[in-house]
Amino acid sequence: MESEPTRVMVAVNESTIKGYPHASISSKKAFEWTLKKIVRSNTSGFKLLLLHAQVQDEDGFDDVDSIYASPDDFRNMRERNKANGLHLLEFFVNKCHEIGVRCEAWIRKGDPTEVICHEVRRVRPDFLVVGSRGLGPFQKVFVGTVSEFCVKHAECPVIIIKRSAEESPQDPADD
Amino acid sequence: MESEPTRVMVAVNESTIKGYPHASISSKKAFEWTLKKIVRSNTSGFKLLLLHAQVQDEDGFDDVDSIYASPDDFRNMRERNKANGLHLLEFFVNKCHEIGVRCEAWIRKGDPTEVICHEVRRVRPDFLVVGSRGLGPFQKVFVGTVSEFCVKHAECPVIIIKRSAEESPQDPADD
Repeated sequence: MESEPTRVMVAVNESTIKGYPHASISSKKAFEWTLKKIVRSNTSGFKLLLLHAQVQDEDGFDDVDSIYASPDDFRNMRERNKANGLHLLEFFVNKCHEIGVRCEAWIRKGDPTEVICHEVRRVRPDFLVVGSRGLGPFQKVFVGTVSEFCVKHAECPVIIIKRSAEESPQDPADD
Repeated sequence: MESEPTRVMVAVNESTIKGYPHASISSKKAFEWTLKKIVRSNTSGFKLLLLHAQVQDEDGFDDVDSIYASPDDFRNMRERNKANGLHLLEFFVNKCHEIGVRCEAWIRKGDPTEVICHEVRRVRPDFLVVGSRGLGPFQKVFVGTVSEFCVKHAECPVIIIKRSAEESPQDPADD
């Protein structure tokens, strides 16, 4: 019998180009990388903790205390929530459900860097996976990088998964 | 049938206190963390690539083209090599063999930061695990941190595993 599953937190966000409910290229990539390279066929050995840090007041969404763990949890989602972060989580929860890996997904409002580090302290994952646009130093000055902040400040091991060049839109600051 | 195993490079080094053949506290911790939290029971899904970057001319060891993959590979080790990096690798290879996870171990001479980044480019692991003493900013100025350099420069995802406070010797710069 195996011990407790390895708890992997994956920070996910919306696409800057397509908006909700589309996941950003980097967070989709980080999620898929985790399944392919870490979880592999050992679906019972892992539990994914899917956190969406949502910029305050972005869509008036206020259901921040709920946890979503299966496709059924989204069945009664109200129409207006389909346009916001909840629908974003549905994408990831459905994928987990398809392959049979346990998950929990939730939304927290606030600055993504602070929210992620706060949630790491609160739920204590074994490690954190964060996607990155892989920006150069010049672009970083303007858009900041959540991933670098997490590596320095999150109280757990952090792995950054960069987008590949061919996955990047014309403007690399887009995602 | 599963696809190719996930190839995890783990950078290992000797203890600064006990010297060869003892592994440093941080690299032992990084290795054990990888087995416990990533490999788990899925031993056929992973292959560990154990790289020991050895400071030039430290022990006159010159067998840098060999790869060690099973305890047998160490059987005919010459006496003088027992005191050096090769004996360090034996510790990790034996552990892999015990639990049944495939591995390859080898030594490269040079500055650890450059050696690790060079070997990542050469063997293209899926990700790199590096231990860290978890030094504060003041201590870092004097001893440098290989792990931070790797996060910035290695051409693959990197995960840093910090020692816990209770594992640290009196002087945290020791390892």
